Amino acid sequence: MPPGGVLCRTRFLSLDPYMRSQIAGRHPSGTVAPGEAMLGETVSEVLRSDAPELPAGRLVRCMGGWREYSAHAAGEARLLDEEITPPSHALSILGMTGLTAWAGMVWQAGVGEGDCVLIPAVTGAVGSAAAQFCALHGARVIGIAGSPEKCRFATESLGVEACINRRTEDIDARLGELCPTGINVYFDLIGGSLLHTACAHLANHGRIVLCGLMAEYNRSGREPGPSPGLLIARRAQVSGLVVYDYESRRSEYVRECLPLLREGRIHQREDSSRGLESAPEAFCRLMRGENFGKVVVAL
Amino acid sequence: MPPGGVLCRTRFLSLDPYMRSQIAGRHPSGTVAPGEAMLGETVSEVLRSDAPELPAGRLVRCMGGWREYSAHAAGEARLLDEEITPPSHALSILGMTGLTAWAGMVWQAGVGEGDCVLIPAVTGAVGSAAAQFCALHGARVIGIAGSPEKCRFATESLGVEACINRRTEDIDARLGELCPTGINVYFDLIGGSLLHTACAHLANHGRIVLCGLMAEYNRSGREPGPSPGLLIARRAQVSGLVVYDYESRRSEYVRECLPLLREGRIHQREDSSRGLESAPEAFCRLMRGENFGKVVVAL
Repeated sequence: MPPGGVLCRTRFLSLDPYMRSQIAGRHPSGTVAPGEAMLGETVSEVLRSDAPELPAGRLVRCMGGWREYSAHAAGEARLLDEEITPPSHALSILGMTGLTAWAGMVWQAGVGEGDCVLIPAVTGAVGSAAAQFCALHGARVIGIAGSPEKCRFATESLGVEACINRRTEDIDARLGELCPTGINVYFDLIGGSLLHTACAHLANHGRIVLCGLMAEYNRSGREPGPSPGLLIARRAQVSGLVVYDYESRRSEYVRECLPLLREGRIHQREDSSRGLESAPEAFCRLMRGENFGKVVVAL
Repeated sequence: MPPGGVLCRTRFLSLDPYMRSQIAGRHPSGTVAPGEAMLGETVSEVLRSDAPELPAGRLVRCMGGWREYSAHAAGEARLLDEEITPPSHALSILGMTGLTAWAGMVWQAGVGEGDCVLIPAVTGAVGSAAAQFCALHGARVIGIAGSPEKCRFATESLGVEACINRRTEDIDARLGELCPTGINVYFDLIGGSLLHTACAHLANHGRIVLCGLMAEYNRSGREPGPSPGLLIARRAQVSGLVVYDYESRRSEYVRECLPLLREGRIHQREDSSRGLESAPEAFCRLMRGENFGKVVVAL
């Protein structure tokens, strides 16, 4: 335990697609080599503390990793707001994935009334938050998901007007039917060929927020992006989103989001498994798109 | 001559790269089929007028095309501001190319103090205006041009700090030397592989304004754009620019630009040839990058 720091026991571990990129050594937040502990954000309980602001017994948010216990300097653990219940929400809707969705759709794309927004992986952690935020801001939301159950959940519970089943439907043809005047905002959470399909349906002055590369994490090369000629013709705006850039606005986001949660206007489905030993399989399910909601491991 | 319209004699014809795209049938502003007159913006003199607001003898800006005479409905010709001298400036620095440069660099990219801006074709019509506007706004401007004479002109007369000769220098290596902390703004006037080279040197939060596709106009397919993974890593902003979208702000631009011209703080080099018969060769020189300044045909 670092002097002035804390010793913690992991209560909840967040599993996220960017971890695949850390394994590949391509993520700005850190890399993982064979034999090292996997990295990861956790909600942990303070067991022993030399930091007066982090008393024993309280919950903190820290980079505990895929471990039962972790030690941190005082500046590397943040006391959890006691209003955040269940505490796992600090890893999902009130944490990094919720902040990603809000930063991308509200701050970066400025989604509002009259926008038609396309969101892939719409029942996933970021997608499900983004869909609800866009619907609350008056946009028409079209989702893409991987099963009839997910599509039903999206339309019944996430404010999604129509959800395309990517395993059974022709996405290009369905977008033509569902968005006859074009897509105003595409939240690219997965990269790959779907970005090109979405671009082909982009409305003039359409905005694309690039955020995730799920479709590419298992490949070695980088996919090309949409052609400049198409982006000019559509007067498109494309912007890359890295959620760490918004860390300074996290409390601003939580202040916006907490009342929405409390009033039941948004909610978070979590795909929870129990025990650290469940983490590898839960992560593989996430990478195969078999999770249903934000993936959290409860310890 | 349409009822209520004007008959005009062409005085100056603007030649621009987008015309190549009109010939290929790929430009939003119109297409040209074999046997039809080439399209083009002109400064023309009103010979006969049924429109009280466009008196005979005055100069107008209109789409006269590659022709000595043209007829227009009153709404299709705009009286030239008599402050615009020489009148050919209404086709260059005070016209579409100047507006393109201002809209791209000032309005769209928000270039300012501390920005390192890369501008290809920097002695061309849009490039030379953009370089001067960026320098006036406090940015450090790096240019790319196709001859030692053009490079010298850029550094001596356009406010460019350093200019790379694309025919003799290794652009990638030179950018590494000249922009060690990265490029903040890239004004893409040409597309092709240079876009990818520029992206490899992009600073975090770098902005790319996509505006022209000179490198692709003679090809049938469309080039892919920069990879989403790179754009995310750089938190880049990419936006397409179509100058027609800024038509409503043209007078605002002219009000900004006229005093700069009058005070000699910016200037416009024109590559002028005489007689309509010179237009085809002048256009081919433009497409080969052999022009030096805005290409105008004086009739």
